[in-house]
Amino acid sequence: MESLSSGPSQESSEYTRSRVVALLHSHGVSSRAAIARSLDLTPAAVTKVVSRLLNEGVVEETGGIEGRGGRRSIGVRIDGTRFHVIGVKFARSLVRIGVFDLDGRPLSMEDLPTVTEDTIAETISSIRRRIHALLRADDSIRAVGMAVPGPYLREVGRTAVVSSMQGWRSVNFLHEFSGRFPVQVFVEQDARAGVLAHHLFDPESQTPDLAYYLLGEGVGLGVLDADRLINGQQGAATEIGHVSVDVNGRPCECGNVGCLEQYCSAVAIHREVVERGMVPGARDMSHAQACEAVFESARSGEADAVELVRRIGRYVGYGCVTIINSYNPRRIVIGDIVAGGGEILLDSVRDVVESRAIPEVRDETEIVLSTMSPDAAVTGAAAVAIQHLIDRPSLLVGSGKATEHPVA
Amino acid sequence: MESLSSGPSQESSEYTRSRVVALLHSHGVSSRAAIARSLDLTPAAVTKVVSRLLNEGVVEETGGIEGRGGRRSIGVRIDGTRFHVIGVKFARSLVRIGVFDLDGRPLSMEDLPTVTEDTIAETISSIRRRIHALLRADDSIRAVGMAVPGPYLREVGRTAVVSSMQGWRSVNFLHEFSGRFPVQVFVEQDARAGVLAHHLFDPESQTPDLAYYLLGEGVGLGVLDADRLINGQQGAATEIGHVSVDVNGRPCECGNVGCLEQYCSAVAIHREVVERGMVPGARDMSHAQACEAVFESARSGEADAVELVRRIGRYVGYGCVTIINSYNPRRIVIGDIVAGGGEILLDSVRDVVESRAIPEVRDETEIVLSTMSPDAAVTGAAAVAIQHLIDRPSLLVGSGKATEHPVA
Repeated sequence: MESLSSGPSQESSEYTRSRVVALLHSHGVSSRAAIARSLDLTPAAVTKVVSRLLNEGVVEETGGIEGRGGRRSIGVRIDGTRFHVIGVKFARSLVRIGVFDLDGRPLSMEDLPTVTEDTIAETISSIRRRIHALLRADDSIRAVGMAVPGPYLREVGRTAVVSSMQGWRSVNFLHEFSGRFPVQVFVEQDARAGVLAHHLFDPESQTPDLAYYLLGEGVGLGVLDADRLINGQQGAATEIGHVSVDVNGRPCECGNVGCLEQYCSAVAIHREVVERGMVPGARDMSHAQACEAVFESARSGEADAVELVRRIGRYVGYGCVTIINSYNPRRIVIGDIVAGGGEILLDSVRDVVESRAIPEVRDETEIVLSTMSPDAAVTGAAAVAIQHLIDRPSLLVGSGKATEHPVA
Repeated sequence: MESLSSGPSQESSEYTRSRVVALLHSHGVSSRAAIARSLDLTPAAVTKVVSRLLNEGVVEETGGIEGRGGRRSIGVRIDGTRFHVIGVKFARSLVRIGVFDLDGRPLSMEDLPTVTEDTIAETISSIRRRIHALLRADDSIRAVGMAVPGPYLREVGRTAVVSSMQGWRSVNFLHEFSGRFPVQVFVEQDARAGVLAHHLFDPESQTPDLAYYLLGEGVGLGVLDADRLINGQQGAATEIGHVSVDVNGRPCECGNVGCLEQYCSAVAIHREVVERGMVPGARDMSHAQACEAVFESARSGEADAVELVRRIGRYVGYGCVTIINSYNPRRIVIGDIVAGGGEILLDSVRDVVESRAIPEVRDETEIVLSTMSPDAAVTGAAAVAIQHLIDRPSLLVGSGKATEHPVA
């Protein structure tokens, strides 16, 4: 993972600490000698850094481990349970808040009441109150991570377009949340947070070229290319939801036509389910509930529902073909609400990819459904915070808390 | 620019030399003190590195320059004329070979006879002979760079699909060219070479987030995100030519339908010009000649030609909207044959972008026609070689020549 810190020329002690913490976070237990070898540091430098991290409670010693040449040595590892972070996921109507430890394990999870255009301001206040309450109840919390719909303009602090719920556009996340708590707040586009979560916490997703394809209330994408997030100049890259798959297709609120989001987001599916009267009472359901209902019908073999899920799968597949041609990842993880379409959906996705992607490239691309629980974006919100803590370990031990730094 | 070398832990002396050479290549003249400050090196280390580079003829001293605090000091700079590289551009029917100096200035340029499916093998032999002849005639040549159509599978050495001229698929560039000359050969996808050329040699394109949109016999794209090339796991990322803009559109040889390449490549334009009888004798022209003829008609106001160029511009524009949503670059440089459509084309591109891209993102994106002469891909082929020489200065002075290293 790319370091978010300022590099070797400034604060080299913090930089070295960060490299040691990052290594231990990704590798688990290591001996001091193995750390020195991996990071090309002197044993003395490692001993010094590790002693301080031990004192600070960031790492702990384990029993003897097998070293090189069969010698036993003492292992050290991050105490993943010692510090916590808050993750907040904003979808459109859904806001979910969780507390996580540094290993990405959820300690608590709550959904706020369904948000409408009229209750956005109230929702912001509720989130602030909840964060304050969680911080009061748990003094191990060291940072807050937020995952928001893209295209998120990271210097500005605002999302440029939120199809089907434009009210969120007027929310400046930096102004609303930064500098209001005794810990720092970090904000990232939701699917980028999701790919970070898989990279940090999913043992199956340990490839440097990874894509997380978020099919929820919106459609988003986060891509790691050679272990580095693709961001673009404003943080508005990898906006697959607004990539057109049909330049003569359905109009989208972003200005484009034929945007993928108009065909295979939970909002688009909900709309279609209501229009076709496929699920009784669908109009009063949340987007997620309507999708779950039609996926359930499909699993039970109901022909109309199967046909709809297959058609959605084809559009998800067109998106995969574009992702393959645009980013050439090793693995595409499909997640969020629409991943609930399961094998029926995935078969349809794979059929499209089989027939439309370049064979030599397609054969090197895995496409899977996310198994991350509760969902990758809220875990990703936590992952954004955790990644910043790894990059700046001083934030863990209080020496970097509550500064006036911008949170981008 | 990303360093292609193996990083600080190995060959640190070569790594430091590479950093000094890279700084001087991008900044022009610097004093030793300024180099030390910029790279966070000790003055003694810089003096040592610079002395060796002076001895080797890689850098030269200039007269006194104004330093910090008004003090005069001796400047050093790369002698950009001292070493040369060969650049080879493969399009489909067109192969162009040039010799360049390290400042990207062309010293000689030649086009091989138009290639057909039947003459590919013969063309490979001609290229080898020409490279040998150029090397014999100029002992300052230190490397060969090649720009080939994508999706170029960099570990394999082969292009996965070459629409309209699939014979090129059977050419393994590594097998055909690597290890056959006393200097190393480096191969890169053509548009990626083009973005590298702009980054190294175009003063207007000095942004870390740059895209080069190659509209030639094929349609390609190279993207720098935060100064780093987006590659993907196999080097097959940023294949905009095979991104579909119409999932119900024209079939492409890659397996996909509605690929951008089917609408706005020189091959697609030539086909349309012939079918509609727009240019007398077009059937016997090269793709480039047919395009130039129709662009000339459009400039003289011929209504059918103007309409065609505008329609092509709309498809080029759909591609720009996809590039903006996919990569969020600061600047998109449109180059190669189709850029000959000039202002008529560009107006049409900008109209589409104005109406279809997200306003806050679009407003931060420049779209321009390349002014690089003779063309960015052949200069890019040279740039690929030059970038490798910057990363491994020992190749310049012979100590790294003719090794058995893989060229990827």
